Amino acid sequence: MSSESANEDCLAWAARDTSGVLSPYKFSRRALGSDDVSLKITHCGVCHADVLWTRNMFGDSKYPVVPGHEIVGIVKEVGSNVKGFKVGDRIGVGTYVNSCRSCEYCNDLQEVCCVKFPTLTFNAIDVDGTVTKGGYSSYIVVHERYCFRIANGYPSELAAPLLCAGITVYSPMIRHKMNQPGKSLGVIGLGGLGHMAVKFGKAFGLKVTVLSTSVTKKEEAVALLGADKFVVTSDQQQLMAEAQSLDFIIDTASGDHPFDPYMMLLKTFGVYVLVGFPSEVKFNPGSLVFGMKTVSGSATGGTKDTQEMLDFCAAHKIYPNVEVIPIQYINEALERSIKKDVKYRFVIDIENSLK
Amino acid sequence: MSSESANEDCLAWAARDTSGVLSPYKFSRRALGSDDVSLKITHCGVCHADVLWTRNMFGDSKYPVVPGHEIVGIVKEVGSNVKGFKVGDRIGVGTYVNSCRSCEYCNDLQEVCCVKFPTLTFNAIDVDGTVTKGGYSSYIVVHERYCFRIANGYPSELAAPLLCAGITVYSPMIRHKMNQPGKSLGVIGLGGLGHMAVKFGKAFGLKVTVLSTSVTKKEEAVALLGADKFVVTSDQQQLMAEAQSLDFIIDTASGDHPFDPYMMLLKTFGVYVLVGFPSEVKFNPGSLVFGMKTVSGSATGGTKDTQEMLDFCAAHKIYPNVEVIPIQYINEALERSIKKDVKYRFVIDIENSLK
Repeated sequence: MSSESANEDCLAWAARDTSGVLSPYKFSRRALGSDDVSLKITHCGVCHADVLWTRNMFGDSKYPVVPGHEIVGIVKEVGSNVKGFKVGDRIGVGTYVNSCRSCEYCNDLQEVCCVKFPTLTFNAIDVDGTVTKGGYSSYIVVHERYCFRIANGYPSELAAPLLCAGITVYSPMIRHKMNQPGKSLGVIGLGGLGHMAVKFGKAFGLKVTVLSTSVTKKEEAVALLGADKFVVTSDQQQLMAEAQSLDFIIDTASGDHPFDPYMMLLKTFGVYVLVGFPSEVKFNPGSLVFGMKTVSGSATGGTKDTQEMLDFCAAHKIYPNVEVIPIQYINEALERSIKKDVKYRFVIDIENSLK
Repeated sequence: MSSESANEDCLAWAARDTSGVLSPYKFSRRALGSDDVSLKITHCGVCHADVLWTRNMFGDSKYPVVPGHEIVGIVKEVGSNVKGFKVGDRIGVGTYVNSCRSCEYCNDLQEVCCVKFPTLTFNAIDVDGTVTKGGYSSYIVVHERYCFRIANGYPSELAAPLLCAGITVYSPMIRHKMNQPGKSLGVIGLGGLGHMAVKFGKAFGLKVTVLSTSVTKKEEAVALLGADKFVVTSDQQQLMAEAQSLDFIIDTASGDHPFDPYMMLLKTFGVYVLVGFPSEVKFNPGSLVFGMKTVSGSATGGTKDTQEMLDFCAAHKIYPNVEVIPIQYINEALERSIKKDVKYRFVIDIENSLK
């Protein structure tokens, strides 16, 4: 490894304990390796994972925790072997910054499935033994394989949420062949992931139905996000009218909910993709066996899919809806995220507020 | 409809009430229609469905119930429009005897998914308004579309179980591309369905592991059925040693069991097919999301798949293991079925015992 830029100070905000309260923090990034890119961060999206690890919800938080895995910035330095990027390029970094690079999944550019588990962008152990620190910081050093090109003209604050929320719904939509115009898609949950699923669905030519417990989201789902239909799932009559009408469902809800009423909405051979995290998945076997239905899980995506998704968004002018905030607002933003009080993703303006 | 053979007496055994006890019974089949085949039944397999409906387990039994939907026999008469079969042909009839023949699934020869629901071989309402009666009888009248050719030389008593047990596992194996030599398959449950899944798996070139709670089945699974491996799932150490080792699992168990320990055995992108009927399906979302796994349901198969499966079994000399019984033994056989005391399917010798 080269040591071209070792020991440069990195400004950040970190949680110091399970309270999850973030405050200013300084640390050193690892030295720039020959395959690494050093990135001056301009924007970072706020993901629910940031809440989970700053508050030690998984019991494995390594404080201080610097969260953030929806990172966009400008290349400020590249290692001697770096071929894909040059100083001044605008790039993104997502939920992982390394993987074994030799297993069957890495070879297939499905690094998120690496048999040795990908190195997550924060709260994981980096190649140098230190704990990875995420995008709530002034810069980051990442192997070029895990960096993505942002198309010219695509706003950086809108690119950020694509790196986790975007790829998490795009990847299974492609895997399960949801890009077939004329087919129908149901979207459960209208947060950062769900609102992107609606937009991808429309871009793929699908007929998109938002399935929500709250009628208050109807107007925005249709007028702002472009959904074709809105079904209030607590209304049995509305729900029954949609029985066996959907080819696909994407479930982005992390709260607990029954599965049978939603599975009933699927046509024969229908596919239900779960990307949310309820406490359990439970349904009647008849909901699966009759109609030969499929329930499938997915988490983010590989590097090939991620680059393809970013390019697809640029080509089709698909933009997340975001609320841009200064880093000083992050504790309020995390509280509001928990209450789902955001339309539809917070993005931190790192460049102009982290100083 | 023609009336060429109306009102001929049909000998049968039927359950008269929820005791499920079967006894001799006589009735008339509907008249032979122009597209119908009349079949002198020689053999009928005994399926768990026979237990369920003779004992009114679904609450919809229409007594007297003549069960049986794994039917093999000889054509004794054909309607004027019948093109596929002639008198003397040996044919099979499976779990349904009619469907709408005009919906997208029927048009795709996936009649089991008919939007108007296929007419089941017994305990359903036939075209003439009578209750369908199954294969525990001397003959049956069926539209030729729902009849299948049995290859010359394939023993009738072995062909019978293919019509339900065989197609139920074959159809999802093909749908989920399990016919890829070198891939690995786990089979849960070693009854009528499970033992066929092992045989199909081997014929497809898969490495087959039988997953069982009972070590007593090991020798037969390996020596008789040809499984490559046998894992006692109650042995945590054995189970953990197989973590992430399987591309596919077919779950034929109808008893309740946990799903997470089995899903843990699947590789990334692995597929778990449920054809059994536990009281519920319940697992941790992490079992699905991490590793991007799929759980899919399936029930029997369409007419195209069924004929293909019968021909595949003949070409590859795949034979179910059966215990042939006279109809007079049926009540004991159903009791033994409930206790899983059969290797691996009872087949009634209708021809020589129902007189």
